Amino acid sequence: MNVEAYMNKLGQKAREASRVVARADTGLKNKALLAMAEALDASRSALAKANEKDLENGKANGLDAAMLDRLALKPATIDTMIEGLKQVAALPDPIGGITDMNYRPSGIQIGKMRVPLGVIGIIYESRPNVTVEAASLCLKSGNATILRGGSEAIHSNQAVADCIRQGLEAAGLPLEAVQVVETTDRAAVGKLITMPEYVDVIVPRGGKGLIERVSKEARVPVIKHLDGVCHVYIDAQADVVKAENIALNAKTHRYGTCNTMETLLVHESIAETILRDLADRYVAAGVELRGCDKSRKLAPVMIAASVDDWSTEYLAPVLSVKVVSGLEEAIEHINQYGSHHTDAIVTENYSLARRFLREVDSSSVMVNASTRFADGFEYGLGAEIGISTDKIHARGPVGLEGLTSQKYVVLGDGQIRK
Amino acid sequence: MNVEAYMNKLGQKAREASRVVARADTGLKNKALLAMAEALDASRSALAKANEKDLENGKANGLDAAMLDRLALKPATIDTMIEGLKQVAALPDPIGGITDMNYRPSGIQIGKMRVPLGVIGIIYESRPNVTVEAASLCLKSGNATILRGGSEAIHSNQAVADCIRQGLEAAGLPLEAVQVVETTDRAAVGKLITMPEYVDVIVPRGGKGLIERVSKEARVPVIKHLDGVCHVYIDAQADVVKAENIALNAKTHRYGTCNTMETLLVHESIAETILRDLADRYVAAGVELRGCDKSRKLAPVMIAASVDDWSTEYLAPVLSVKVVSGLEEAIEHINQYGSHHTDAIVTENYSLARRFLREVDSSSVMVNASTRFADGFEYGLGAEIGISTDKIHARGPVGLEGLTSQKYVVLGDGQIRK
Repeated sequence: MNVEAYMNKLGQKAREASRVVARADTGLKNKALLAMAEALDASRSALAKANEKDLENGKANGLDAAMLDRLALKPATIDTMIEGLKQVAALPDPIGGITDMNYRPSGIQIGKMRVPLGVIGIIYESRPNVTVEAASLCLKSGNATILRGGSEAIHSNQAVADCIRQGLEAAGLPLEAVQVVETTDRAAVGKLITMPEYVDVIVPRGGKGLIERVSKEARVPVIKHLDGVCHVYIDAQADVVKAENIALNAKTHRYGTCNTMETLLVHESIAETILRDLADRYVAAGVELRGCDKSRKLAPVMIAASVDDWSTEYLAPVLSVKVVSGLEEAIEHINQYGSHHTDAIVTENYSLARRFLREVDSSSVMVNASTRFADGFEYGLGAEIGISTDKIHARGPVGLEGLTSQKYVVLGDGQIRK
Repeated sequence: MNVEAYMNKLGQKAREASRVVARADTGLKNKALLAMAEALDASRSALAKANEKDLENGKANGLDAAMLDRLALKPATIDTMIEGLKQVAALPDPIGGITDMNYRPSGIQIGKMRVPLGVIGIIYESRPNVTVEAASLCLKSGNATILRGGSEAIHSNQAVADCIRQGLEAAGLPLEAVQVVETTDRAAVGKLITMPEYVDVIVPRGGKGLIERVSKEARVPVIKHLDGVCHVYIDAQADVVKAENIALNAKTHRYGTCNTMETLLVHESIAETILRDLADRYVAAGVELRGCDKSRKLAPVMIAASVDDWSTEYLAPVLSVKVVSGLEEAIEHINQYGSHHTDAIVTENYSLARRFLREVDSSSVMVNASTRFADGFEYGLGAEIGISTDKIHARGPVGLEGLTSQKYVVLGDGQIRK
C-alpha cells in the first residue's frame, strides 16, 4: 500500500473511532489510561529491547549525545510515563460540561456544552515518552489521535503503541482511538497535515524548523508554539529585592525552556542602583551579557548588543539588556521584538502594573513573578500538550480544555421562530 | 504602487492601529460607533450617488435582479445600518474582562483576560451594509479591520468607508483602525489572506465558492461558514403537535437561510401517524418533497430521493425525508450526511434527548425547538459576524466574543520558580 492510501486508511479509522471516544464516559476513559500504565509496567523489558534497537541505529547514524539522551527510554522515563497516565486519569473530565444555560425571550433555553475536537494529529521528534503523554491527553479529552513520531524512535514508539492498545482493549474502546504511524516515510507527515476530512487539528511538537514547515503546508488548523523571546521589565518603582530575584530566576533557573527570559529591560532611573550588582550576579552564574550603550556604561562587563539580539531566543546562558525611558518604551519594545509568549513587569505601582497587563500583547503577562511560571502545571491545568503562541483557539499553556471545543445546546418546549 | 506593496502598506498600518484600538477604552469605541451613525445619516445623498454609480455599472455588466437588489443602498438599508451601529455601541465591551482569578500553591494568582485578536480581514460580496456591520463588530471587540468588498460595490463601499473614518476621527481613534481596500484587483484578496505578519484571522462572508477558495489559499486562520445541511428528527415519543409545528417552521419560515432544515428524519413507528398529514401541509406551502422508499409508501406525493439529496443544502422549497429505525440511525445519518451546523430532535423522552445532545456532532444541537433559532440574535449574542461550521476557536454563531482571545494574567508578590 502506498503512503497516501495508508494514511487515508488511518484517517478514516480515526474518524470512526473518534465518534466512539467522544461519547465514552469518564470511567471508561480512565480505565483505559490506568490499563495503559499497567501495560507499560508489565512491558519494561520489551520496551528496553525496542529502545535498544533505536539507540543502536541512532549511534550508527551519528546522532549526537543530546539526541541519544532524548531518545533513551530509561527505567525512570518509564516511571514518569506511568505516573503521567495516573495523573491524567485523575484530572476532571472536561467533556460534556454545560455552562451558561440561560432562558431567552423566545422561551428557548441556551447554553454551551464542551465537546472534543475530533481527530488530533501529533507530529513530534525523538522523545518516545511524548507518545504516551499526547495519547493520554487526547483520549481524556475525548479525541482520537494519530501520532507521528521521529523515524529515529520508530521501534520504541511501536512498543509504546502496543501498551496503549492493550489499555484501550481493556476498556473496550476502539484500538483506532490512538494510532501510531508505522511508516518512517516522510510523505506520511505531508499527508497527515493535508486531510481535513479526517484530521481536525495538528499539534507539532519539536524544533522551530518542524513547526514552521507544518504551519506552512498544513490544510488544517495548527496549534503551534514558535519562539519564546520573554522579557522582564524592572520599573523605576520596583522593589529592588523582588526585581533582582525575579530577573535572576527568570534567566538562570533553566536555560533551554521557552519561558526563560531572553531580554531584561530596566528603567533608566533605577538602572544605576540595580544594574551593576545584577550584572555581577549574572556573570557569577556564567551568563553572557549583551547590553545597549547605556547598560554598558553602567556595567562594562557587557558586550555590545546588536539589533538581532532583541529578537533572539538564545535558549542558552546569554541575556540581552536594555535601559529604557519608561513603561511606554518597555511595552513598545516587547510588542515589537518579543514573540508574544510571556512577559513580566516588576513594580509596586498599581497604575503601571495595570497598563502593562492590558497593553502587552503576550499569551502570559505577569506582575512581580518570574516568567518561568508560564507552564501548564504551574497554572493548574494539570497537564500540558504545549504552549500556544497563536491567538486563535488556544493561547498560552494548552491543557485538556485546549483540545476541546464548545457547541450550543438549545432546550425548548416546542418553540418555533416567529 | 503595485497591489502587493499597497496591501503590505495597508497591513502594516492596520497592525499599528490595532495596538491603539486594543487599549482604547469602551467610551471611546462607543463614541466612534455613534459618530459613524451620525455621519451615515448626514451623508445619505452622497451614499445614494455612489450607490447609483455601482447600480448603473452593475446593470451594464449584466448583474441579475437578485444581485442588484443586494447591492442597493435604499434609505431603509441605511436606517438599518444606523440602527446596527447604535446596537453595537450598546453591547457590553468584551475586552479586558478578567475571569477565573485563582491562587496557586506557589502563591501566584492566575486568571484570564479577554483581549482582541489583532487585525481581522473581512472578504465579502455585493451588500455594502456588511462594511458597517463588520467594521463595527471588529472595532467594538478592539480589533483593526481590513475590509475587501466586491468590485461591483466599490463606490458604495468607499462612500461608507468615508463615514466610518469620520466616526473614528470624531473619537480620536486612528483612521487606519478600519481600512476599506480601494483597488478592485483580485490579487488584493490573494495578498490579504497570505500576510500572517499583519493579519491575524480572515472572515469570508459570501458564497461557498469564495469561502472554499479563501480556506484553501489562506496562510492565516479562517473563521468560515460552509454548508447548513440541518435536520429535524421526529422521535417515536415526540409530541405530534410540537413535531409538526417545528418541522414546518424549520423548513418554511425562510428558505434561503443556513439554519433552515434540509432533511426531515422520522421514526418508523410514528411515521404512519404523522407523515401523510405533514406531507400535505408541506405541499400546501409549496415545498417539493424527496423521500426514501418507506416515506413514499406513506406519502406518495414525494418523488424519490437520491443519495446526493442527503447532503444537499437546497436553500429552496425542497425537503428530503427519510424514515429511520430509531435514534441510533438518526444520529448516524446526521453525523455522516449533515454539515455539523444545527440539528434538532423532537421527543418527550428524557434519555433519548440527552443522548441526542451529547452524540450529535453539530455546532447547535436542539431538543423540541426549530433549527431556525440558530442565530446570534436569538442566542443573545447581540450581533453576529457569521456562523462558524469549524470546531477550532469559534463554533456556531460568532458574536463579539468570537473576535477575541484570552491571555493569562499572573499576579505575584515577588514569586520565583523553585
